Amino acid sequence: MPPSPIRKLVPFAEAAKKKGTIVYHLNIGQPDIETPKAVMEAVRDNHIRVLEYSHSAGNESYRKKLVEYYNRVGIHVNTDQIIVTTGASEAILFGFLACFDPEDEIIIPEPFYANYHAFAVSTGVKVVPVNSSIDTGFALPSIVEIEKMITPRTKAILICNPNNPTGYVYTEKEMLELRELIIRHNLYLFSDEAYREFCYEAKHFSAMYLKDVDNHVILIDSISKRYSACGARLGAFITKNKTVLDAIMKFAQARLSPPSFAQLAGEAAADLPEDYFNTTKTEYKKRRDLIVKRLNNIKGVVCANPGGAFYVIAKLPIDDCEEFCKWLLKDFSHNNQTVMLAPATGFYETKGLGKQEVRLAYVLNCDHINAAMDCLEKALEVYPGKR
Amino acid sequence: MPPSPIRKLVPFAEAAKKKGTIVYHLNIGQPDIETPKAVMEAVRDNHIRVLEYSHSAGNESYRKKLVEYYNRVGIHVNTDQIIVTTGASEAILFGFLACFDPEDEIIIPEPFYANYHAFAVSTGVKVVPVNSSIDTGFALPSIVEIEKMITPRTKAILICNPNNPTGYVYTEKEMLELRELIIRHNLYLFSDEAYREFCYEAKHFSAMYLKDVDNHVILIDSISKRYSACGARLGAFITKNKTVLDAIMKFAQARLSPPSFAQLAGEAAADLPEDYFNTTKTEYKKRRDLIVKRLNNIKGVVCANPGGAFYVIAKLPIDDCEEFCKWLLKDFSHNNQTVMLAPATGFYETKGLGKQEVRLAYVLNCDHINAAMDCLEKALEVYPGKR
Repeated sequence: MPPSPIRKLVPFAEAAKKKGTIVYHLNIGQPDIETPKAVMEAVRDNHIRVLEYSHSAGNESYRKKLVEYYNRVGIHVNTDQIIVTTGASEAILFGFLACFDPEDEIIIPEPFYANYHAFAVSTGVKVVPVNSSIDTGFALPSIVEIEKMITPRTKAILICNPNNPTGYVYTEKEMLELRELIIRHNLYLFSDEAYREFCYEAKHFSAMYLKDVDNHVILIDSISKRYSACGARLGAFITKNKTVLDAIMKFAQARLSPPSFAQLAGEAAADLPEDYFNTTKTEYKKRRDLIVKRLNNIKGVVCANPGGAFYVIAKLPIDDCEEFCKWLLKDFSHNNQTVMLAPATGFYETKGLGKQEVRLAYVLNCDHINAAMDCLEKALEVYPGKR
Repeated sequence: MPPSPIRKLVPFAEAAKKKGTIVYHLNIGQPDIETPKAVMEAVRDNHIRVLEYSHSAGNESYRKKLVEYYNRVGIHVNTDQIIVTTGASEAILFGFLACFDPEDEIIIPEPFYANYHAFAVSTGVKVVPVNSSIDTGFALPSIVEIEKMITPRTKAILICNPNNPTGYVYTEKEMLELRELIIRHNLYLFSDEAYREFCYEAKHFSAMYLKDVDNHVILIDSISKRYSACGARLGAFITKNKTVLDAIMKFAQARLSPPSFAQLAGEAAADLPEDYFNTTKTEYKKRRDLIVKRLNNIKGVVCANPGGAFYVIAKLPIDDCEEFCKWLLKDFSHNNQTVMLAPATGFYETKGLGKQEVRLAYVLNCDHINAAMDCLEKALEVYPGKR
């Protein structure tokens, strides 16, 4: 099991703070957006006498609310097709356990969310990366390239849409191409849509919109980012494939139930007025526009304009992103401030890729983003490993 | 992955209830004891603005409270030796992932908590059962018997103390024998002590009391039963073995964090006055005394007097416990009431064992236990598969 590539830098950030340096955390997807009041009130106002196990698939009352939410975004499922999980993390773990045998292969466009690798290691599944590139804004690799990687052990393709770490939003055309591919090779399509509500231009095209592939498509979801409720630990595993659902239920029953308080929060979240996301999205879009502009104004920095989520990958004129990110915390400060970034190498399966790239999470307000970009700009002027 | 042996009966219970029959649930360890008010208030009174991820090992404030709790019960650990998990379930899963390679073996006295098997299947670990018998009250099998099962692939012994499903409390002598064994064969000792506070005569002897085996002992814990807070989903993985802790942290980081609301509940629970358990224990002891007396008064029924937890295994004069438990729900009622029991076969790894045994969880009040025992007594008079 590899250590978390981001967490490795934490001791350096802690040391910097101990010295009195302000550290701007653009390294993790922990939003500063307030959790909706109605969501917190639902937990505060509970009248629970005995805090019992919930149903292993999650409370039916919560699954009913989820059905309504999904209906509103054009995803038509019923309560039996939803298994509530402890974060999207558990949904992915269950999916890997239920759909794969050890040594089976899953194709994932890289760079990808580093913990997919961790769940693959936990379940003996082999991750096969297909490279997506900053030059195309991290669009889906060509189907020809993906098809080249398919072996008799390939069981699934996994996408994250909108993507963490690239912010890319897959187009309808790309999704339809994937549909052909999963039919042709009889594969599962795992679609992690935790950032669904954060698309700034294009409309989100869910994998659940794909026609006549009900037995192939698996939706992974989470309320963490959608409602700024990461600490709730509430996700969902959704599919219309009855056999897969039956298998997932066995794993769900073994761990008894998802967290009860979080399900109260989730019910209230699903009831939020439809304009809730407008406010949040406007804020994130403003931040994206700012950070992309600031990045592109720095000499030698290249970055795409990502259409969703709250991440952007930038290519920097540096020797090695891991060294650079460590140096930012250890040896650099500007007006007693510095910035913490995520080295992109941690998101690539292929060794050697992403060495000049970093991921920035625009989860701070615009003043802090400006201050962080000032730091980055100054840092790139004096970094000894500049290229 | 096998289906949960208890959950298989759920549809029959639901059908009985639809017919208007009252079903007494002695089949699962879901206590009816009220969750302490202070625990619920801690969640209701929260002032969280942004529901953030907690530390992957759990909030330090919660781990500090746990250190105080463990100190009070004679277990001396520090905050770095505790990793907070989503229920004991996750602690067991992490332990298996971190300490075993696929095909490694773990010895568990049977009957045992059925989900251990599920977590073993999930991680490719092989469970090797050693039989404990109702004739000895389910005491630890002799060390000679256990030692016979050890192979080069054996990495650990797992006990649950007090035991689910037998209620047996391991003696200091048995624990010291296990200590010798794990030293002699260089094994881990996993000790699941979720029912620690429910010992009715003997004092609990924790695996953490064993001297000079710090690198061998792994404590699995949970607040679910201790504070009647099953829905919180809060457990802990505890060891003084630094290498194991480092490995567990990687899995903990991959799933980001344990649930935040539950940790508020956990902090308040650790602060409960010391007499809290007296009241709860008095209630459970009264129930145990009642259920054991009622069982032993039924002709042909044999049961031990378990020293802890809230379970008892009874041997019934029947052909097959799975058939009998199904028949109780499907074909029997007494004054429009029936009882749901857990077939003990689900707790045995060895096929064919436990066919005449059932597990009863005394999680209902004495009136309901009496009513349930009336049903059982009548049922055994008329059951067609009587032996």
